[in-house]
Amino acid sequence: MSTDTTIADARVSSMANAIRALSMDAVQAANSGHPGMPMGMAEVATVLWGEYLKFDPSAPDWMDRDRFVLSAGHGSMLVYSLLHLSGYANPTMDEISRFRQLGSPCAGHPENFLLPGIEATTGPLGQGLAMAVGMALAERHLNANFGDDLVDHRTWVIAGDGCLMEGVNHEAIGLAGHLGLGRMTVFWDDNDITIDGPVNLSSSEDILLRYQAAKWHTVRCDGHDADSIRAAIDAAMADPRPSLIACKTVIGKGAPNKQGTSAVHGAALGADEVAAARKELGWTAEPFTVPDEILSDWRKTGERGKTAHAEWNERLENAPNRGDWEQHMMPVGDLASAAVERFITDLAKEPKTVASRKASEMVLGPLTEKLPSLVGGSADLTGSNNTKTKFTDPLTAENYGGRYVYYGIREFGMSCAMNGMALHGGVVPYGGTFLIFSDYARNAIRLAALQQTRVVFVLTHDSIGLGEDGPTHQPIEHVMSLRLIPNLNVFRPADIIETAECWALALETSDTPSVLALTRQNLPQLRGKGDENWSRLTNRSARGGYRLKSAEAERKVILMASGSEVHLATEAAKMLEADGIGADVLSMPCLDLFEQQDAAYKEELLPEVNPSEILRVSIEAGVTQGWERYTMARGLNIGIDRFGASGRAEELFERFGFTPEAVTAKIKAALAGN
Amino acid sequence: MSTDTTIADARVSSMANAIRALSMDAVQAANSGHPGMPMGMAEVATVLWGEYLKFDPSAPDWMDRDRFVLSAGHGSMLVYSLLHLSGYANPTMDEISRFRQLGSPCAGHPENFLLPGIEATTGPLGQGLAMAVGMALAERHLNANFGDDLVDHRTWVIAGDGCLMEGVNHEAIGLAGHLGLGRMTVFWDDNDITIDGPVNLSSSEDILLRYQAAKWHTVRCDGHDADSIRAAIDAAMADPRPSLIACKTVIGKGAPNKQGTSAVHGAALGADEVAAARKELGWTAEPFTVPDEILSDWRKTGERGKTAHAEWNERLENAPNRGDWEQHMMPVGDLASAAVERFITDLAKEPKTVASRKASEMVLGPLTEKLPSLVGGSADLTGSNNTKTKFTDPLTAENYGGRYVYYGIREFGMSCAMNGMALHGGVVPYGGTFLIFSDYARNAIRLAALQQTRVVFVLTHDSIGLGEDGPTHQPIEHVMSLRLIPNLNVFRPADIIETAECWALALETSDTPSVLALTRQNLPQLRGKGDENWSRLTNRSARGGYRLKSAEAERKVILMASGSEVHLATEAAKMLEADGIGADVLSMPCLDLFEQQDAAYKEELLPEVNPSEILRVSIEAGVTQGWERYTMARGLNIGIDRFGASGRAEELFERFGFTPEAVTAKIKAALAGN
Repeated sequence: MSTDTTIADARVSSMANAIRALSMDAVQAANSGHPGMPMGMAEVATVLWGEYLKFDPSAPDWMDRDRFVLSAGHGSMLVYSLLHLSGYANPTMDEISRFRQLGSPCAGHPENFLLPGIEATTGPLGQGLAMAVGMALAERHLNANFGDDLVDHRTWVIAGDGCLMEGVNHEAIGLAGHLGLGRMTVFWDDNDITIDGPVNLSSSEDILLRYQAAKWHTVRCDGHDADSIRAAIDAAMADPRPSLIACKTVIGKGAPNKQGTSAVHGAALGADEVAAARKELGWTAEPFTVPDEILSDWRKTGERGKTAHAEWNERLENAPNRGDWEQHMMPVGDLASAAVERFITDLAKEPKTVASRKASEMVLGPLTEKLPSLVGGSADLTGSNNTKTKFTDPLTAENYGGRYVYYGIREFGMSCAMNGMALHGGVVPYGGTFLIFSDYARNAIRLAALQQTRVVFVLTHDSIGLGEDGPTHQPIEHVMSLRLIPNLNVFRPADIIETAECWALALETSDTPSVLALTRQNLPQLRGKGDENWSRLTNRSARGGYRLKSAEAERKVILMASGSEVHLATEAAKMLEADGIGADVLSMPCLDLFEQQDAAYKEELLPEVNPSEILRVSIEAGVTQGWERYTMARGLNIGIDRFGASGRAEELFERFGFTPEAVTAKIKAALAGN
Repeated sequence: MSTDTTIADARVSSMANAIRALSMDAVQAANSGHPGMPMGMAEVATVLWGEYLKFDPSAPDWMDRDRFVLSAGHGSMLVYSLLHLSGYANPTMDEISRFRQLGSPCAGHPENFLLPGIEATTGPLGQGLAMAVGMALAERHLNANFGDDLVDHRTWVIAGDGCLMEGVNHEAIGLAGHLGLGRMTVFWDDNDITIDGPVNLSSSEDILLRYQAAKWHTVRCDGHDADSIRAAIDAAMADPRPSLIACKTVIGKGAPNKQGTSAVHGAALGADEVAAARKELGWTAEPFTVPDEILSDWRKTGERGKTAHAEWNERLENAPNRGDWEQHMMPVGDLASAAVERFITDLAKEPKTVASRKASEMVLGPLTEKLPSLVGGSADLTGSNNTKTKFTDPLTAENYGGRYVYYGIREFGMSCAMNGMALHGGVVPYGGTFLIFSDYARNAIRLAALQQTRVVFVLTHDSIGLGEDGPTHQPIEHVMSLRLIPNLNVFRPADIIETAECWALALETSDTPSVLALTRQNLPQLRGKGDENWSRLTNRSARGGYRLKSAEAERKVILMASGSEVHLATEAAKMLEADGIGADVLSMPCLDLFEQQDAAYKEELLPEVNPSEILRVSIEAGVTQGWERYTMARGLNIGIDRFGASGRAEELFERFGFTPEAVTAKIKAALAGN
């Protein structure tokens, strides 16, 4: 590609200086931000965007665009500069001048939900690169399904030393190397500087050798020399492996007194140094002004993609598989609901006592059959997470058309890759690990929520109910702590029907990721045949909580529980009723959704009466803190506020007081005011 | 060492088979567990423990023992076998026969708090190896201080493919390679198998090359051949770099029909296969019986260390630096309290308005001066976390005697290393990163709590108060979610005095790790000169919460807050009092400690009256869920239940309602019943 589009050296320089000027001026105006990376990587970004990147600024959502991820997200002024200069509608120069101010889409770190053209929210180091692996994987997967005419793009990443030092880097490049994602290229800003000082303060690694060990192609370039950059990119594109380009750069290049030091990493240069840099760069324009000629050069880079986009549109128009393509890209929510509805109908006839992880596998059967965009996987716990179905063949370097990824023992890498797949589009990813290891992936789950991606985290072995593996593997605080993450739906279904309902909800929610917390142990089916409230047409889990059973005697107690403890609550209710104590049972599969219900619905379930009249009881095999929202101070919270232990599940539930007898005794004591 | 102690081949075989028999029988009896790894690594473990490892079964706490960490913790029967066979008091054979049963110290995964001789709680993959890095670092540090006579031991690790695939592996070996921890050796159980199947299902990595890239020495051996194992260990010991020994093994070796497959990884072999294995191994003894001759061979391995231990005792007795040694090893709590008391006394004279991260740096001055065992560090945020003092020189490969570790951009690796340092003893570690990146290290923080180690996690930039870095960097759910982890004290101090008090508490608590959540922004000093309750002798933070200010008008409101919001609460209280509404202000620096107070103290602060008489209000710039424990359902929880935004701290606090005016208005509305 470079031969047609090569930009003369002098123009590369002036275009790169436009990035430098915007970056240092915006950071200076905000008196906050990171000028070092944008100034250091200005030539690399100019050559990439000017000569190679396939993009159409007028259509940021064009499916076959190249993906560009700024993994070193603190250098956000680089991408804001690129978007503005190349002709995206936003950010405007006014928005850039309000960099990092409340209300500007030019936030401290790039946020995909604020600016079209930002492919991923980055800043938490390493994750941009790891999400890019998911994008590159989604591209190959769709290419396998729809061919070169419709899917033929690349994934480019700019990463810093931090991204490479983070553990997730190892997981991400291991996955990319194994899957041979040759259309992915990482530019490493090899500037020898971290925040604390020179890189050699904390690292002695031979990074290229490590990438080679992970089956990557590696090449070096002078990050300030256009020809050297082009040669490296050409070599990367020619090699079938994913590529790392080590770009030797001077951090903060252009700031004559500070460049090459950690002083330019994360603070404004200061008025004097900005003035000195202007002189050094020969940049005479006012702040937030780009000379016409330079802007014109930049705008041309955006024109290239328009032609490519028009050609692509034409190919799609005439594609024999256009129907398949359009069907594949349709929203999946309705299909999921319909599949789940049919699945539940059958359960009404023949109830099933199964673990909710098994229930999940069972409903995944029809879901993966009917939804071709569903792509599953597990971090080496396929048989435990029950994530594979017969409709999902392995997705491998030899068969990108497969729909099941053996992610390996890489929980964080898997979660980031799934975020990238969801951001890429055309793929709806789900993946499994043990709930306890959500800890390893926690910030990726948070970024799924922040980025508003539809990713389904299948987290099994959700309590002491996993038994003998003991406290290192028994989640205690995890369900509640995940509930605390904004914009994340944490589902903990009570039986096979709720599991199916929660799967439908997870797939219907395009802007919110979901956690499915599932049991290892069997759970009886609580609804279905003989249930007076039975209706296959109503997804009762959709309101987050509902009354599973009404008090028979005068209501004195409201029991609320989630997951495996709902059945326990129904057993305790029976014992209470036998003593003339009326007890409602509320199943609460998703507190996040319950919170969103209107006051009338909440009041219906949890009437606001004096607690001496109705005792509210929460039962969950996890921490109690957080449940007080619903039980009030005089309520009773039954849970586990210490680490678990190794033993059989039944023994553990008994030891920790999760039996109908123990629960009932506690409730009676509370009713008696003890 | 091997020449003196070489065990004849036949004896190595029978000793290894004892491990195999115990492992398969215990797993079979429990019908749960992981026989594959102990059976595969039996010869490696026999040669290591029999000929190289320096240990004294009668003194598991001997300071100069070698450290052995089973990073592949699921293979716990290996270490239980080794402890029993070599002569530790526990586990007894009876305890082994109750493997994985409730009450047996032979838990599903090895737990340091259940069995002396277990150096670390492992199971969450990768962390054992990463903790071992901390142990090896602590050894070199103490060696630098006290010389070869007193500190001269090695750190040995058995790790599986899972440990090597996890991201934390990259961080850990990068740190170990950079610091040249040549007395650390990792045996990689190179068996080509993961849970999902062959390793090549998910990985194509050249692991030796990667370790070489991280400046490790690597060597291969046949893991079933004693001479080959010895040659590799000798090479590892001769090389100044840390070493990886790739042990080619057959997983489940000895089980003739299942060995070499993932079927032996994590399930009992079944009675038939156990019988077949007995035949294959020529093992005729009953389950849980070891023939005398073999047991005698094993017990001899434990004798070796007794001599070494006796010699060490003698060297210590006569050591010129014995006094220093003993002082260094003394509990640090009293020293810390005294240093903090002096620090606070000075503040009474001259109050300080500083960020709590700065306050932390200020009190760390005298603490690091007076406590030589304190070793600090940061994950490349030294200047932001304020973790370095003038008393802590860099700890480097050239100066192990230093006391400040530049951990690099390795939050998880740092946290694991700190756990290992604390487990090793002789070092009290603290280390910093941004609070948001506790997500990256979360399971290590959990393991610190589970293992009952004294590690201090200095987590700065604790709310939207960090400002312009935006929602990727602004903790919302983190403080509350860390509070949910059992046995972890989460401190969020309100001013410089509380910061000092919380540091004292963190250092006084030997069995509980601490988080210090600290601000980027300045906080006024709330106690000291002019404070009627002022006493430098009472650590008011010790009860987790206390009344900072009593209502002046008739008490209608109790405001409770933590950290930066305590000052806000005092300002709101002033406004309420001006309107004749009496308001207590409770400062709650540590809800974990407050929970532990007796009912009378809690009642004194939070009297149980009708909420229409006294409104309880929580104010914290984070999620509200969890605070209802203290506010009751009719209380008011002021917090942030969504992601943050990029902007100046003051703007953000205003936007999210954290002003005295907004807080006061909400309280008045709640009092009016709206």
